[in-house]
Amino acid sequence: MRSILPGEAFPAHTPAASQIFTTVLCHGPLTRTEVAKRAGLSAAAVTKAVRPLIEAGYLVEDVDEEARPSLGRPANPVRVDGGRALFIGLKITGDEIIGVLTDLCCRIRTSRHVPLAAPGPRAVLESAAALVHELLAEADGFGVPVSGLGIAVSGDVDRAGGVVRYSPFLDWRDIPLAELAEMTTGLPVTVDNDVRALTVAEQWFGAGVGLSDFAVVTVGAGIGCGLVVHGRVVSGAYGVAGEIGHLSIDPAGPPCHCGNRGCVEAIAADPAIVRAVREATGIPVADAAEALRLAHGGDPGAREVYARAGAAIGRAIGSVANLFGPERVIISGEGLVAHDLFADQILEAFAASAFGTAGQCDLRTRPLPFEEWARGAAATAIQSFIRSDTY
Amino acid sequence: MRSILPGEAFPAHTPAASQIFTTVLCHGPLTRTEVAKRAGLSAAAVTKAVRPLIEAGYLVEDVDEEARPSLGRPANPVRVDGGRALFIGLKITGDEIIGVLTDLCCRIRTSRHVPLAAPGPRAVLESAAALVHELLAEADGFGVPVSGLGIAVSGDVDRAGGVVRYSPFLDWRDIPLAELAEMTTGLPVTVDNDVRALTVAEQWFGAGVGLSDFAVVTVGAGIGCGLVVHGRVVSGAYGVAGEIGHLSIDPAGPPCHCGNRGCVEAIAADPAIVRAVREATGIPVADAAEALRLAHGGDPGAREVYARAGAAIGRAIGSVANLFGPERVIISGEGLVAHDLFADQILEAFAASAFGTAGQCDLRTRPLPFEEWARGAAATAIQSFIRSDTY
Ligand SMILES: [Zn+2]
Ligand SMILES: [Zn+2]
Repeated sequence: MRSILPGEAFPAHTPAASQIFTTVLCHGPLTRTEVAKRAGLSAAAVTKAVRPLIEAGYLVEDVDEEARPSLGRPANPVRVDGGRALFIGLKITGDEIIGVLTDLCCRIRTSRHVPLAAPGPRAVLESAAALVHELLAEADGFGVPVSGLGIAVSGDVDRAGGVVRYSPFLDWRDIPLAELAEMTTGLPVTVDNDVRALTVAEQWFGAGVGLSDFAVVTVGAGIGCGLVVHGRVVSGAYGVAGEIGHLSIDPAGPPCHCGNRGCVEAIAADPAIVRAVREATGIPVADAAEALRLAHGGDPGAREVYARAGAAIGRAIGSVANLFGPERVIISGEGLVAHDLFADQILEAFAASAFGTAGQCDLRTRPLPFEEWARGAAATAIQSFIRSDTY
Repeated sequence: MRSILPGEAFPAHTPAASQIFTTVLCHGPLTRTEVAKRAGLSAAAVTKAVRPLIEAGYLVEDVDEEARPSLGRPANPVRVDGGRALFIGLKITGDEIIGVLTDLCCRIRTSRHVPLAAPGPRAVLESAAALVHELLAEADGFGVPVSGLGIAVSGDVDRAGGVVRYSPFLDWRDIPLAELAEMTTGLPVTVDNDVRALTVAEQWFGAGVGLSDFAVVTVGAGIGCGLVVHGRVVSGAYGVAGEIGHLSIDPAGPPCHCGNRGCVEAIAADPAIVRAVREATGIPVADAAEALRLAHGGDPGAREVYARAGAAIGRAIGSVANLFGPERVIISGEGLVAHDLFADQILEAFAASAFGTAGQCDLRTRPLPFEEWARGAAATAIQSFIRSDTY
């Protein structure tokens, strides 16, 4: 395990206290009684945990002259003071880094992009450090400390160890990113898989608030999935989970970079779509944007490729629903620019493949720009900050 | 919610106390300090919860003259007295009911079968009641009460409400089975889906003990799956989960009774195998046993059908691994009689479809006869008994 860098300690010294703060963060303002009910804890435990959080300024009490104390407990609702601390989140893609400065409620205060010249760890770290220093300079104006940095990277990431085990897009293997970024920025660093980071943001601050079981499916350069089961993000016993892109749905389908055949990613991710549009139309489109223009221009061959991609995504979401029965599936990712070309096919294929009441799952499309992925990274930093105590 | 029938109350009055008892049940004998560590609770909480459980005879202390108390807490290990209470578990199949009498540690004391003449709820209930009364007569000899009855049925079962919403094998819809069985037997009744019940038995007493994430996959008349994620059995927000049989893995595959195409169940369940063996060989085999004899006799067409079934099961397990990353997958079910004909194909297809480290998942074959499914039903009754208090 990595050491925690020195910094202001968050005054929640037990798992219960962190849970109480998280409950107010996601659902507040709430009275202490409401917090106790939601968190499944005693009102006394809530009152005890709330006091130091108010004293340190992380929680504030909304004063209401009408409210009367019950059983000696203050009846005023408490809420998180978002301005009490700042966080930085970075999303690293194949060709740029997107950075955001957020408050404790994960509201974006400012955002920046830097292009990436080369994907090597050294060059990426230098660009990331420069971006962080720009955002730290912006943060100075707010007069509160930056309490953590979150970095989201696609691929196999060991969050507990702070290591990027394998990122195909960057071609990184076993990079101790958290440690390296802590050295260059001086901030406590949380590193996580980008889709899991986005899922944390949705769970705490987005379309997953209040749901114990939901999924986030992202379409674009790859096809990813974050799963929340029993209120917690699924990580997998061996570090792999949510690999919806490598569900094999057609034994006669195209080969996938993973070595298998007919994976969802080999049918519906951007590189697969570009390849299939070239084959279907004979036009040597250079990238996803050109393929999309062709389809939007009405080319039937190109449109058919998008329709097939939608059907593959819908069937894959059907598999997710049949296995764990989520209450909602949030569909996002940069691939949603082609939404009009495959939304109906997603819904149709999902309806055909969902078994029984699993089909009641709420499919929701949510365009989330890359700033939101960087915000997800900030959310993981907030999560680590709240749980940073040694318990 | 159903009312709880009168009976001896189990002296665990909080979720923590139930959790402490469950920890000793699954992992004991354990010292109080070991229980506290495993359950993530304070030693004081454990000492407090253990006392009434010892007084009521559910826990016993192994006296060791050498052990010294630490901090005033007894240092002797505690374990569950299995003989302190008895439970009955029933598994209802399409043509028989299998019943077991177990102790509190879910060890089978005796088992019985009755054939089912008709699958209607009234006839099934009469046979079930007769079987329960036989087992109750047997229980008399042990001098301890039967504290609960568990009933396992395939299909969509609402455990909390005690209702079989839909069971295709029995052709039941919305049968309030728990209430009806409570009236005819006088016992508190827990009704659950059969694969979920088997999964509970594996989690508490079988190959899943100590694992927070694992799956049970059953092959035979249907293809089922029980999932444990973050230490709890997955039920699905809309009541459907673990429907591995209806993962659609081949758009060109045979039609499935669910209305979709290429489902695992339409390729690898007994009725699909019988149909495919008839087509492949031209021999009008009557049932799965005949199809199996043909394959064991060396018929290449029949053998190829089993090989394809194995590949479908292996790919489906690959999908489970890619999405959840379980530590282990336990393969069971009456279909394992054909194990020698498809085990290699399961492993090959799993290895080809598992993504990255998800392939490290431990695939384990475990032949569990129908008595074990009935034992699973008893395990759900034990679970309800331990958690029966109104908290
Ligand atoms: Zn693949
Ligand atoms: Zn089906």
